[in-house]
Amino acid sequence: MPITKQTIAIIGAGGNMGSAFAKSIAEGNYRLLLFDRNPEQLGSLHEEILLDHPKADVELMNCPHESSWEADIIILAVPHGAEKELADKIREVATQKIMISMANPIDEDFSQLITDPDTSAAEELQQWLPNSKVVKAFNTTLAADFEQPVINGKQVDAFIAGDDEKAIQSVIELVETVGFNPIVAGDLSVSGTLERMQLLLMQLTIKNEYNWLAGWKILHN
Amino acid sequence: MPITKQTIAIIGAGGNMGSAFAKSIAEGNYRLLLFDRNPEQLGSLHEEILLDHPKADVELMNCPHESSWEADIIILAVPHGAEKELADKIREVATQKIMISMANPIDEDFSQLITDPDTSAAEELQQWLPNSKVVKAFNTTLAADFEQPVINGKQVDAFIAGDDEKAIQSVIELVETVGFNPIVAGDLSVSGTLERMQLLLMQLTIKNEYNWLAGWKILHN
Repeated sequence: MPITKQTIAIIGAGGNMGSAFAKSIAEGNYRLLLFDRNPEQLGSLHEEILLDHPKADVELMNCPHESSWEADIIILAVPHGAEKELADKIREVATQKIMISMANPIDEDFSQLITDPDTSAAEELQQWLPNSKVVKAFNTTLAADFEQPVINGKQVDAFIAGDDEKAIQSVIELVETVGFNPIVAGDLSVSGTLERMQLLLMQLTIKNEYNWLAGWKILHN
Repeated sequence: MPITKQTIAIIGAGGNMGSAFAKSIAEGNYRLLLFDRNPEQLGSLHEEILLDHPKADVELMNCPHESSWEADIIILAVPHGAEKELADKIREVATQKIMISMANPIDEDFSQLITDPDTSAAEELQQWLPNSKVVKAFNTTLAADFEQPVINGKQVDAFIAGDDEKAIQSVIELVETVGFNPIVAGDLSVSGTLERMQLLLMQLTIKNEYNWLAGWKILHN
């Protein structure tokens, strides 16, 4: 465990995935900065986190730029459509920092990906933030999995893709703190596979009524 | 169970996947026609099947055209690079038949797919065989999974994609006979996701030394 806490900015912390992540990471040795452009969504989240983890080091923030400036790791828990504008706002303060791409670029009726077939949300984010260390993570896990990362007796796998080994190592620690089984899937170009897997998981969740608690697992000896 | 047996032609039955499939389907109520362009590979397979299933209805064939002509379901257990030439040979006799695409269009060093990003091996096969009912199946399962479809206490999922409902139903029965848990993933366009998943599984199998016994599972309540 590092002597100085790492600081994590969660941009979009009031949303479904952002709040699920914030609650489950709060038991770790991290300083959390919560930002949402709808600040009223953050009030109860702050209380909920402190109720479960009274010693959690968590702050509400008013500005994505300020949040990112103070952070070592930035989690973008916003829809893919909002990422480019956000990237423009925080580009300078995100230089050399770990930037986690959680987004799944799925259309409104869960029928297809809206990115071109030869790229991915994560690779686009890396283009928009060329000096940040983009890591794809937490996109293959549904929000409910964060509260219950063991389903049907097996720990849900959480796939990680990125080009920077040290950044990947930090994200492995985040994944383990949240309670998932980390699997390093490969470099950032594997993100297209991970985003397609999540589209498929969402489609199957709807069709087969998994009640939004479902996750990927690789069975092996 | 149908009164008349369905006939399955396995083209490439001497290979890794073809022989694994042949052995595991032999306990079902099917007539099996085994073809391989290297017929010497088929001799011991025939004996092995009859040793485990003395009542199995299984024949060695000399010609892919003849095999397909007699079949209700045709399994192409050949590398993707061999599919087009084979499709040309059997096109006429494969009309209206179920054609199972098992192939994963992966390059020799398991680094990437060789198909264009906006298509898949299965969709290409459907283009080459426009009058056949192409169904993607058994591509997300490794050969060893056929012998051991329950890994670490969980039944391996086998994903199915296709455009014809009746054909999908027949393939579900095949999957169940082999011993996997069938999951209908969607129409044939989902094949690109399934082929990417298998590339990832193979890469992880090599990197993490799963000993070629590994399979996908969706955990859910």
